[in-house]
Amino acid sequence: MMQQIHENAFIARLASFLPRQPAQLNGVQESDAELIRLPGEAHHVLAVTTDAIAEEIETGLYTDPYLIGWMTVMANLSDLAAVGADPIGLLVAETLPRDASEEDLIALQTGIRDACARCGTSVLGGDTNFSDSFRTTGTAVGLIANASPLMRVRCTPGEVLFCTGRLGTGNAYAARRLTGIADPDPAPYRPVARLKEGLSLRSIASACMDSSDGLFATLDQLGRLNNCGFELENGWEDKIASGASRFAASSGLDPWMLFAGPHGEFELVFTVPELLISALHRGAAKAGWTPLRLGKVTRDAGIGLGGWGHFDPDDLAAIRNHPLTNSAEVRSFPRFLSILAERCRNSTKR
Amino acid sequence: MMQQIHENAFIARLASFLPRQPAQLNGVQESDAELIRLPGEAHHVLAVTTDAIAEEIETGLYTDPYLIGWMTVMANLSDLAAVGADPIGLLVAETLPRDASEEDLIALQTGIRDACARCGTSVLGGDTNFSDSFRTTGTAVGLIANASPLMRVRCTPGEVLFCTGRLGTGNAYAARRLTGIADPDPAPYRPVARLKEGLSLRSIASACMDSSDGLFATLDQLGRLNNCGFELENGWEDKIASGASRFAASSGLDPWMLFAGPHGEFELVFTVPELLISALHRGAAKAGWTPLRLGKVTRDAGIGLGGWGHFDPDDLAAIRNHPLTNSAEVRSFPRFLSILAERCRNSTKR
Repeated sequence: MMQQIHENAFIARLASFLPRQPAQLNGVQESDAELIRLPGEAHHVLAVTTDAIAEEIETGLYTDPYLIGWMTVMANLSDLAAVGADPIGLLVAETLPRDASEEDLIALQTGIRDACARCGTSVLGGDTNFSDSFRTTGTAVGLIANASPLMRVRCTPGEVLFCTGRLGTGNAYAARRLTGIADPDPAPYRPVARLKEGLSLRSIASACMDSSDGLFATLDQLGRLNNCGFELENGWEDKIASGASRFAASSGLDPWMLFAGPHGEFELVFTVPELLISALHRGAAKAGWTPLRLGKVTRDAGIGLGGWGHFDPDDLAAIRNHPLTNSAEVRSFPRFLSILAERCRNSTKR
Repeated sequence: MMQQIHENAFIARLASFLPRQPAQLNGVQESDAELIRLPGEAHHVLAVTTDAIAEEIETGLYTDPYLIGWMTVMANLSDLAAVGADPIGLLVAETLPRDASEEDLIALQTGIRDACARCGTSVLGGDTNFSDSFRTTGTAVGLIANASPLMRVRCTPGEVLFCTGRLGTGNAYAARRLTGIADPDPAPYRPVARLKEGLSLRSIASACMDSSDGLFATLDQLGRLNNCGFELENGWEDKIASGASRFAASSGLDPWMLFAGPHGEFELVFTVPELLISALHRGAAKAGWTPLRLGKVTRDAGIGLGGWGHFDPDDLAAIRNHPLTNSAEVRSFPRFLSILAERCRNSTKR
């Protein structure tokens, strides 16, 4: 199942050359960050994760150095959030254009600084190289003290699916950037890692993953890892961020398409057993946030969208494996989704 | 003093935007890896470091994917060695050419695997991106349990200067690769992080740094950080690796030039108070290695090379700030060094 997604298959192949660390708690793909029991400290788990901002720059998705700095931090902190870790700090490797302007360098550093400040953490150090364009690789280090980490595995049918905030802003941003479709009301794209939310999900969520690659990719990956599927409940359209919703309406995109694209918004997507739902709401209220209910975990594989049809793993594989490396491919993506959805609706009625 | 070196000044400027983590033990440039006291574990220090292999690939210094993989691991583990940390594991962010051959991908992964195996550690996870060429960023995580980390700061005049192994292979390799000068006896360049050596230097070495940028850069950086200098003792020529020595002789390079270039061999360079020298040798013998004595820490700034002259901080800044970004600059570098050395010899005699 996992290998049907090209990216999964490729990563599994790369990883197959490398022996695992015996103290590591997660297998490949089983958590958003790598989890290692600290030598000599059985009750402490170290969480580490690395994420390069390279393709996003090359495709033109991120051009503003401030946003590049912000995302270098947030993409990595979001992985810590999704395992329930407290951040210790970040490392940032920066490749800078030899002719970078003073203004761009300041914007990059300010984006890094503001994102750290927003999440109450800091840069510990880094590495600097020079080349022809901006590229950054962030690494985040965190600690899970006296608790079990959140992982992507171990949800079961019947549990309830939640997220930490409204979705769709990542794909609305990407569609706007890469197709040039005008947005009547563009808000800056500034996702925030859901760290306090992740902390309050420890011992509550049965599985957790961030929506960095969009909701469909997140649910599809969770489904493949746990041998289950998901059914979104009536009213899921209300879980789309209002700006993204308006953009979809004005540009002729179906609302669910904001879930189907591969660029997300770094909310946490998680499952909770019925018995723990009141504990979830108590913990969340105490931490100052509100879980949004999205649907249920199902025995059937795939993603159900009520009247919009049911996307089975083959459909989701077609979506996730679709190349989106240039603007022509991005522009034709909604049409590809429409055709697929039409087929899904018909096969659901059958 | 520190800011006279362009790279130091640039890094200080980048870092000036970013507030430090209060639990961090080292200031900017004060250690090879970042050192953070673990929250709630006062006797444990976490060591983390990140290093991108980008310029080495772009300049043609590393073209073999196996070597790129090997160096992604070793450059980072060497930073852990230089702070006396035990590795927990590595993260590797790989940017791969879209048209990479099966053979090249396997070579890259095998280089990573072999370097990890050589040092008894593993890759915990990573990130994969696609672009037009190979680029990697490694991150190493290590632990210093119940001990103080090694740092670059705190050596004093009168102490003895050592290294963990023979030097010069890094610059011989770079000169051979970038100038096309034939080597009668080329051994593959495969530095090994001196992890067990670093462990046995804890509580012994007053300052420690790896020779990743060549011996001159290491000593110059240590001198600027500690407000001191270094005098190499008669017989320092015997501390050059035999292959590098033969290459220098056959290509007309003075032996000390193998210390002056910016590409090193990842030995540890460290200082020890006279009183601890027998403890150093006992500890090293127990761990199975032999410290090589290089010279002394001096009150006078700069690097003394006996009959070859004395390089003061201005000379060393000229060497370290010299651009070496294309093969013409690399080819003219020995001549630049010769002119400088001639001036240094004359001013020493004065």
